[in-house]
Formats: sequence, structure tokens, C-alpha cells
Amino acid sequence: MSETDLQGETINETQLDEDDRLRPDFVRDVLACVEDGDEQGARDLVGPLHPADIADLFELTPEDRRGALAVALGDIVDGDVLSEMNDHVREGLIDALEPHQVADLASELDTDDAVAIIEDMEAGDQAAVLRALDPDDRAAIEAALSYSEESAGRLMQRELIAVPEHITVGQTIDYLRDNPELTTDFWEIFVVDPQHRPVGTVQLSWLLRTPREIAMSDVMKREQTLIPVDMDQEEVALRFQKYALISAAVVDGGGRLVGMITVDDMVHVIQQEAGEDVLKLSGAGDGDINQPILLTIRTRLTWLVVNLGTAMLAASVVGLFQGEIGKFALLAVLMPIVSGMGGNAGTQTLAVVVRALATNQLTSSNTVRMIFREFRIALANGLVLGLLIGTGTALIFNNPALGGVIAAAMVINNMVAGLSGILVPVTLEKLNVDPAVSSAVFVTTMTDVMGFFSFLGLASVVGLSG
Amino acid sequence: MSETDLQGETINETQLDEDDRLRPDFVRDVLACVEDGDEQGARDLVGPLHPADIADLFELTPEDRRGALAVALGDIVDGDVLSEMNDHVREGLIDALEPHQVADLASELDTDDAVAIIEDMEAGDQAAVLRALDPDDRAAIEAALSYSEESAGRLMQRELIAVPEHITVGQTIDYLRDNPELTTDFWEIFVVDPQHRPVGTVQLSWLLRTPREIAMSDVMKREQTLIPVDMDQEEVALRFQKYALISAAVVDGGGRLVGMITVDDMVHVIQQEAGEDVLKLSGAGDGDINQPILLTIRTRLTWLVVNLGTAMLAASVVGLFQGEIGKFALLAVLMPIVSGMGGNAGTQTLAVVVRALATNQLTSSNTVRMIFREFRIALANGLVLGLLIGTGTALIFNNPALGGVIAAAMVINNMVAGLSGILVPVTLEKLNVDPAVSSAVFVTTMTDVMGFFSFLGLASVVGLSG
Repeated sequence: MSETDLQGETINETQLDEDDRLRPDFVRDVLACVEDGDEQGARDLVGPLHPADIADLFELTPEDRRGALAVALGDIVDGDVLSEMNDHVREGLIDALEPHQVADLASELDTDDAVAIIEDMEAGDQAAVLRALDPDDRAAIEAALSYSEESAGRLMQRELIAVPEHITVGQTIDYLRDNPELTTDFWEIFVVDPQHRPVGTVQLSWLLRTPREIAMSDVMKREQTLIPVDMDQEEVALRFQKYALISAAVVDGGGRLVGMITVDDMVHVIQQEAGEDVLKLSGAGDGDINQPILLTIRTRLTWLVVNLGTAMLAASVVGLFQGEIGKFALLAVLMPIVSGMGGNAGTQTLAVVVRALATNQLTSSNTVRMIFREFRIALANGLVLGLLIGTGTALIFNNPALGGVIAAAMVINNMVAGLSGILVPVTLEKLNVDPAVSSAVFVTTMTDVMGFFSFLGLASVVGLSG
Repeated sequence: MSETDLQGETINETQLDEDDRLRPDFVRDVLACVEDGDEQGARDLVGPLHPADIADLFELTPEDRRGALAVALGDIVDGDVLSEMNDHVREGLIDALEPHQVADLASELDTDDAVAIIEDMEAGDQAAVLRALDPDDRAAIEAALSYSEESAGRLMQRELIAVPEHITVGQTIDYLRDNPELTTDFWEIFVVDPQHRPVGTVQLSWLLRTPREIAMSDVMKREQTLIPVDMDQEEVALRFQKYALISAAVVDGGGRLVGMITVDDMVHVIQQEAGEDVLKLSGAGDGDINQPILLTIRTRLTWLVVNLGTAMLAASVVGLFQGEIGKFALLAVLMPIVSGMGGNAGTQTLAVVVRALATNQLTSSNTVRMIFREFRIALANGLVLGLLIGTGTALIFNNPALGGVIAAAMVINNMVAGLSGILVPVTLEKLNVDPAVSSAVFVTTMTDVMGFFSFLGLASVVGLSG
């Protein structure tokens, strides 16, 4: 049986399920080996896995058993595995290592992966690791750390291939063959001018398809997407996505080539940034299930306390109508329907608008059109829902006035929901506040307050009674 | 001024803002040219843009003016532009074209992009376009259309480079140079056995770094991630992300190489799948702002009507306690706080769990641990919130019994929220129901019902009165 068969079939099927998740019995077997002191057994099981799967294995292992697993696996847990690992899980493991061990792990890696391992360490530990690195690696990592977190400077690798304009395809290929120390992790070659500014990009497939005597400047594509070294990773991700980039040159303020970002690193960022919105909108922080639990509690509680304040505000609106409710308790029964449905409609609009803002689909050019669109959707939905609940209420309680009041309140609150669902995030975006983080609290407060106020207020004006 | 300067600086700054969005005044200028019949002016403005930006321009143009824009731009709107365009916007444009025009556009493209343009057409129109294609293109596209939507078979391109094991690096390079009709859109070469089954992959950088006389089978990596042709695109996306793939071989049931998927195509899928959760959880359908408005209304309304049903269920719980509310209207004032806070806490847990399930971080191996984790978080948050609202209520209304009741109800409902927030999506996932779509309605129904029931029920048992 060939290795390919093993990787493609047999191993995958005993270790991974059909969705590429590690099988629970496989995880259990590995941990049983560790428990029984059978280190060789554990290594035999884990050795054939991809680094990403070994990283997953640690995430699936209870926190208090990860140290023993790492000891048992020994050098199977290399830099590649660590760079694939969840930040919190990795931090826990790295805390247990000596600085020179971390330095050994980091020195195997490209700058971007080494930085990922080192950047979250405490200052003292980080300094010790940097001292233990050889000078070239240290300089590269220190330079990367000098850029702000989540910037292109942190994401980029310094290992890249750059050649001057005047050399030929053949000379480039010879240069690559003659210099074994160059990186093999590249998909495009950057052509630079004498000031080391990128002037063009050559895909490797073009290089391979072109006769040796042609100059690089005649093969290269001149239009290229350059990434400023201080650009935020979210913008970098959008640029990779929009222009379908495989790799891109990172340039400093003077336009000089200082690094390269490849798409395999951006894929993680794209996934993370796109998935973040749902967590932010719900106030769940970064939603990392490997986060220490006290941090998770604090993050979520902060948001819940803010919501407690807005819930009390909404309750105080109900408080204005205690007299009416005392006389006609059915109002209290029906009022949550109006506020709740407003909340649902507002959340729908909010989700759509926050996504459209995050993907640059909603811009100044179409904002007015989209507000009008949401207005029409809210009016249509409000009318249908108002008709349903109004008719139902009138029939069930044999009270047409009550049905009319709840129908009107439903229409009003749907309009409030639809309009605040687009106006709040668009306004926050204009104010440079992340609309995903802050919109929900404003919108649900409005739909709660207006839901109660419109329904109870109309009931009071009409003078409903039981 | 060189082209690079133009692309890198001047053009970008007049056409795109700092976030790579088309500037509103640029869009306005283009549309003004179209309006004034100045087609050359519009073409001069739009010509230098990247196809992705031209696609954006159409999305930012009001629907009723897109046809005139397309006419003015003429052949600037090529297959690349169409394949970058939002589905709904593209459909609108394509409806206006003759089948042979669509066929001309599609024939310029790789199979995957051609399929993207053709797959949503009506059957009759699609057949007409297929007839107008040359036989090779038609066969390739018909084969792709035979796979189900959102499968690897639809995403893959058939244009790829595959070579037998025994040939050398030099022979491979000569083969690429001597066959100009081969695709240039590839990053890896697949090595296949005589049955055309992939046995290894060679990165182009390795090919370039290796002496010509070495056999391909000595350069290739044997462990490779193969994509079954019927795999769902979400799984394909996770596989690309997990294993940091640039391209991957797609194989049929017999293990034969039938196509290739490249990461630039997956980046869109990754972004889309990751961003979908927030839209699904909120019941906003696919949340596409370019969708026809009637379809949007129907999608959102369906969800709202379901929620109306659950809201009435929750209201009926309140109805059980009308007597208590009639005697003590303050209960009606406070009850939405308990239900609302439960909803918020449930949504937090739900967002975290749905993300963790979608990214394969939550698996059978750690489900029990995570349920226990959410239990502890819910208990901690419930106790803090209960203490806050209980003390506040007791003091404000000078009613310690009322404070005790709302505090207890808050703890109970937070536990309901936390546990249903994880148990509902995990159960739905086990039942092969998408947890993002269906979880929210169950969780918020539970938190509403239990919020009202625990608070009003306890108040009734304790015999609270004003």
C-alpha cells in the first residue's frame, strides 16, 4: 500500500471523520496511551497526523492533560504544530517551556509563524526567547514585533524572492537553483527597481512557460496590488479576496519591498474576520471556546450588564402605564409580542447591514437606496404581521379595538426596527465605531422601548379596558 | 509616470477610497457620462479598473440604470467582470443578452467561472448558450453542471497540469514551454499514475529549484489532500483553511483526477460561509442586498411569522398569570427584564457554539466539557445579574420579597439560556439540521417562556402583592 493510499484513505478514516474532525475514539486512544505511560504508543498514533490535526488534538484535550500529552509527544510538537494552535492553548504550553526551547521552535519557522508564537508571551519571557535566537532571526522577529498587532507587518514573512528588472528568466531560474538557502514557500517572484521598490510580479507558471532568454521585465505583470506595512489585517484580507491574490508585496512608507503575505495565511484571517460579526453582534467577545473561563465570564457579563440597563429603561416605559395594566391585564400579556417582534425584525436588518458594511457592499454610493429598501421591507412586513396579530387578537378576545391597537403598534415597531437596523450601524460606521460591536444594544433598546410605548400608549389613548 | 505608479497611486486614489471601495463621486461621474450619452468618457473612466471593481460599479448602480451602463461600457464588461459580479446583478444583465453573446463571454473563462455565469440561467436560455459554445467548452460545462450546486464539481476547473511519474523536471518544463494552449492559472503540478489517479503534488517553486534531470516522482510530495468531486463547498473550504492549501486535486469515485480547485476561488467561499452564520441566526436568509426585494420580504417574513407563533406561546404563559398582574401591575413592568436578559445570554452562547461547530472546534470529543463550561458561565452570570436586579428591585420598590423573586428568576433563566444555547445547536447538528438556521427560534422561545414562567410563577407561589 503506497503512502498516498495511507494518507488518502486508511489513516484518514481511522483518525478523522468525514468532516476532517479527529474521531473521539482516536483522541481517547491517544490520551489513554499518555495516561498509561505508553509514550511510544502515543507517538505512533499521532506521528502521521498533519500539524493542523496535532494542534486540534491539543485543543480537544482537557486543559489539565495537555502538558502530559506534550511531554509524551516530544519533538512531534514542533513549530508548525504550535503555529497552528489556538492562542490560549499555545500560551499554556509555551509557559511550560524554557526560553531556549521556544527559540529552537521559532527558528524553524518563517517570520510570520515565529511571530505568532512569540507575540503573546509576557515581556520578560519574550526578551529571553529573543536573546536565545540567532541574530538574523532575532532582527527579523523584532522588526515584525515593531508593527502594531493585526497589521500587515505582523502577518508578513520576510523570506521572499526579489530580482532586478534587467535579468532574464534563465538567470532567475539559475539563481533559484544555486541558492539553496532561499525560501521554497513562494508562488510569485517580485521584480524590484534599484531602490528595492516592487515594479512587477511574475507568477511561477509564467516563468516556467517562458524561454530562458526573455527578460523578467517582459514577463512581469506591472499592475500589482501592494500592501502598506501598517494596513490592518481586515483590509488586507478584503484586498486578497477582492483581487483573488495568491501573494502580495508588502511595502514600507517609502514604497520599498519589506515582506510578502501569502494567501494561506490570509485564509485564517478571512475566516476569522467574517465569523467575528456574529460573536460581536451577540456580545460574546471573541467567542473563543479555549479562552480562560474567567475572561469569558467577564466579557459576556459586561455586555449583559449594559443590556440590563437598557432592559430597565424599557421596563420603565411599561411602568408609565401601570394604571392601564392594573385595569386591563391583557395588555401585559400582549405587549411582549410587539416588542419581541420588533427585536426580531431589527436583528434581521442589522445582520444584513453589518455584513454588507464588512464586505464593502454597502458604501456611500448606495446607502440612501438601501435605507429606502429597508423602509419598504419593514413596511411590508409590518403590515402583514400587523394584519395577522390584529385580526387574531380581535377574534380571540372579541375586542376589535384591541386588535386595531396591536396591529398599529406592530406596524410602527417594525418601521422602528427596520430603520434603526440600518441607520444605527451606518451611523456608527461613519463615526469609525465598529457597527458589529455596538449596534445591537441601540437597536434592541429602540425596539423594546417603542414596542411598549406604541402599544401601551395607543391603548391608553384609545381608552381600552377589559 | 509608469503603469505601476498609476495602478499603485494615482488611479487608486481618484477611484477607490482607503478601504478599496469605489468613491461615490467616481460612481456619480461614470453614471453622469452614461446619462449624457458620453460613452467614450465612461469607458475612459472605467477601463483602467480591475474586473472586481467594475463588478462593484454595477452593484453600486441603481438597478434601472445598469443596462445603460453595460451598453455604454461595451466589451469592457467581459467574462471576468461577470464572474466577479453578484449573482442577482449578473442575472439581470445576462437576461438582456443574446445566447451567443453569453457563449462568447463564457468561452473566455476557466470552467469554474463559466459555470458561475451559466448555472443560474433559466433552463431554456442555458440550453441556448450551451448550443452556441464550441463542443469542448460545452462538454466541460455540461460535466460541471451535472454535479450538485455548491459541490466541488461545480467549483473546480478542468484546466490543470498533470504529468506521469516517470518524466523528469526538465521534461516537465519543456512540456509546459512547448504547449501554449495549457492553462497558466496553476500553482502546483499533479503527478498521476497510468490510471490518471493523483500520486503526488509538485509546487512550482520546487520545480524551479530542482535540477532538470531529477524525476518528478522524486520531487513530489506524496501526502496530499484530495477533494472528492461531490464534497460540499463548506467542507472544501474548511479543508483548504485547515491544511493551508493553494490548490488541490479533485477526484471522482474511482480516485481519478477530474479537476483542480485553487485557493483564490475558495477565498470567496470561506468568506461567504463564515459570514452566513450571522444572517442565518437572525433569520435574514442569505442577506444579499442585491436580492429582488419581494424575495427578501418573503424570506424575512417567513421567519418573522414563525417567531410570531413563538411570541404568542410566550404570551400565553403570561396569560396564565393575568390575575396576579391585575392585582399587582408591577409584575408586568419587571417581567420583560427577566425574559429579555435570558434572550441576550442565550444569544451569546448560541453565537459561540454555532461558530465553534462551523469551524470544527466543537466535536464529540469536547462537547461534554463545553456543556459544563457553559453551565458554569451561566451560573456565574446568573448569580451576578440576579444579585444586581434583586438588590435594585428590593431597594427601589421597598419590597425584599419581590427582589428575591426576580433574583431567583434571573438565575433560573440564565441557566435555561446557557444550557439551551449549547444543547439546542449541538442536538440539531447531531440530527444533521443546520444549527445556525434553526437554533435561535428554540432558544429564544425557551428563554421567553421560562423567563415569564419562573418570574410570574414564583411571584404567584410567594403570593406577592402591591
